[in-house]
Amino acid sequence: MDFRLTFRDTHSSARAGMLTTDHGEIETPVFMPVGTAGAVKALHIKELREDVGAQIMLGNTYHLYLRPGTDTIEKAGGLHKFNGWKKPILTDSGGYQIYSLADIRKFTEDGVIFQSHIDGSRHFFTPEKAIDIQRSLGADIIMAFDECTPYPCDHHYATKSMHRTHRWLNRCVEHFNKGKSFYGHSQSLFPIVQGSVYKDLRSQSAEYIAGINADGNAIGGLSVGEPADIMYEITDTVCKILPEEKPRYLMGVGTPANILECISLGIDMFDCVIPTRNGRNGMLFTRNGIMNIKNIKWKDDFSPIEEEGEVFTDTGYSKAYLRHLYVSKEILAAMIATIHNLGFYMWLMREARKKIIEGNFAGWKDVMVKRLMQRL
Amino acid sequence: MDFRLTFRDTHSSARAGMLTTDHGEIETPVFMPVGTAGAVKALHIKELREDVGAQIMLGNTYHLYLRPGTDTIEKAGGLHKFNGWKKPILTDSGGYQIYSLADIRKFTEDGVIFQSHIDGSRHFFTPEKAIDIQRSLGADIIMAFDECTPYPCDHHYATKSMHRTHRWLNRCVEHFNKGKSFYGHSQSLFPIVQGSVYKDLRSQSAEYIAGINADGNAIGGLSVGEPADIMYEITDTVCKILPEEKPRYLMGVGTPANILECISLGIDMFDCVIPTRNGRNGMLFTRNGIMNIKNIKWKDDFSPIEEEGEVFTDTGYSKAYLRHLYVSKEILAAMIATIHNLGFYMWLMREARKKIIEGNFAGWKDVMVKRLMQRL
Repeated sequence: MDFRLTFRDTHSSARAGMLTTDHGEIETPVFMPVGTAGAVKALHIKELREDVGAQIMLGNTYHLYLRPGTDTIEKAGGLHKFNGWKKPILTDSGGYQIYSLADIRKFTEDGVIFQSHIDGSRHFFTPEKAIDIQRSLGADIIMAFDECTPYPCDHHYATKSMHRTHRWLNRCVEHFNKGKSFYGHSQSLFPIVQGSVYKDLRSQSAEYIAGINADGNAIGGLSVGEPADIMYEITDTVCKILPEEKPRYLMGVGTPANILECISLGIDMFDCVIPTRNGRNGMLFTRNGIMNIKNIKWKDDFSPIEEEGEVFTDTGYSKAYLRHLYVSKEILAAMIATIHNLGFYMWLMREARKKIIEGNFAGWKDVMVKRLMQRL
Repeated sequence: MDFRLTFRDTHSSARAGMLTTDHGEIETPVFMPVGTAGAVKALHIKELREDVGAQIMLGNTYHLYLRPGTDTIEKAGGLHKFNGWKKPILTDSGGYQIYSLADIRKFTEDGVIFQSHIDGSRHFFTPEKAIDIQRSLGADIIMAFDECTPYPCDHHYATKSMHRTHRWLNRCVEHFNKGKSFYGHSQSLFPIVQGSVYKDLRSQSAEYIAGINADGNAIGGLSVGEPADIMYEITDTVCKILPEEKPRYLMGVGTPANILECISLGIDMFDCVIPTRNGRNGMLFTRNGIMNIKNIKWKDDFSPIEEEGEVFTDTGYSKAYLRHLYVSKEILAAMIATIHNLGFYMWLMREARKKIIEGNFAGWKDVMVKRLMQRL
């Protein structure tokens, strides 16, 4: 994996770069659509490629390990072969889902015993196992096994948890370095900064992570309920410590405004379920603000979903028709909103990159943050 | 509307024709995908046009009347404008859905008082109202308001019901002839033969309907639970009476085998929820038979869904991946199966038409009926 920074904004810490993997190049800043079970919900792989124009997709280790299981994915030749997505894939480590979805039975220095949210079966994840599974999935970017602390979280627990995350990271790195790719393409391991909302811990963790000298670095444990200002402060603190020349990935963030703000702080990579999950629930992001498409006000509005939109759904369907599909609980509603919202996120990232290159990102960002979050 | 019979099979009653409407031509025999609420479930309008290659879609009057309501659809400029489907649309009369979905409060000579299955609101449908709603929807083909008798149904009730359907038909015709199209394109009214499984009643009804001299004629009240042999017998009886030079539409039929058998009896038009509804439940129709894609036997079968299939889903996804999507309850599973099954039905109709034109339909049909219904 190679990362080249091509432009730096002079009025903010925003950067434009190019990340090169064996499955192709990724222009940064980049948003990675979430394909939990190996598919972005309500979207064809072909649409992700051709209509949305995604550069990389994310898969969830926890879900894919439970279903279909690494055995099937290995027989398929890895996740790329299994789902037909030929561009880069990033997988999380499973940690976050174990904490949020599974029933944890026992938490030890060695790892976590949990019960599947699907069938109650028992499983044991360790840092080594999280690496093995991601090797088996064939992810281009593998995430270290960490503990994502909840919010709020007291300083004592956050400290203890951060140190365990660092010890687990050491085991991940060691195990990763001993192993090799199953399918011939190269894989990179990204460590994750933790430390909750505490600047002292975050600085300490960022320095620890910077010392690993990995291909890229991630910030976890944010956007878990804390106020946005705190998220920005912590992100800023951490970005100032993480190496300039490596990509920075802010996990699980966020709204269009969150993303623009964090780009300006020096983040290069994002993932979030907001465009897909909120879309399925009727929240549409547009260049002029946010629509709750289920609202009665759209009942007889036959104008396109988004006149300036670049995806076929934006001009191919009206607001009134999409509202009708939601009210009628039609699957097509979720399909349209998914393409629309992801198409919008991709447009937003391309615009942000263009503005960084043109040198007018900061001013544009301030205007957009206000505009994009207003309610239509 | 114009209908020209271009080829007749010499070994069966199968025919190939061309139906011309103001929204374009339809090659027959034709299968019409069901778009209940103005959308084929789990399918983009664009996919219906480009990937499935449908020539005409069906809309349900009962559903569209309740949601979004004729007021909204009229403001949009008709159903074509509302959903963006530019080819012909056929709407049913609402009768069948009132009997199968709504709670009927009162059934009189004048019409039916029923409660909506959505919110319990009360509504009154008469033959005149069914015509008015379909005028408002802007359907190219409007169906008469009938009573679809259940199976089994005693001869006494079937006789009484048939006569009422005929009296209602007279009111439909009179009201239809007094009215005119809302949107400038021409609309045709198709009457419906009833009479349950009784040949004497079906003959009587077919003669009555033939006497109407409509642009096309339909057969209703079949495929409601009776054995397939009885359905074929009744269809045969009715086809022999209905005029040769008008299209014949068998409502709500059926499986690939049902359709091929009924083409051979002289049917030109079909609609059915089987490819879409059964698809959403994991039943895939292929050139070699029927797959229950949820079956464990497909778990590690990485071959394409259908190697010879013409739709992008057929070769773009593997059986194992599609099975995984079903097991994981992913929306994408329904999306893939819908395109696949409708694509298969369209292929089957094109093949049938080609065989009729080539003069070897009957022999091909016998081979296909066996092959298509075997379990893979």
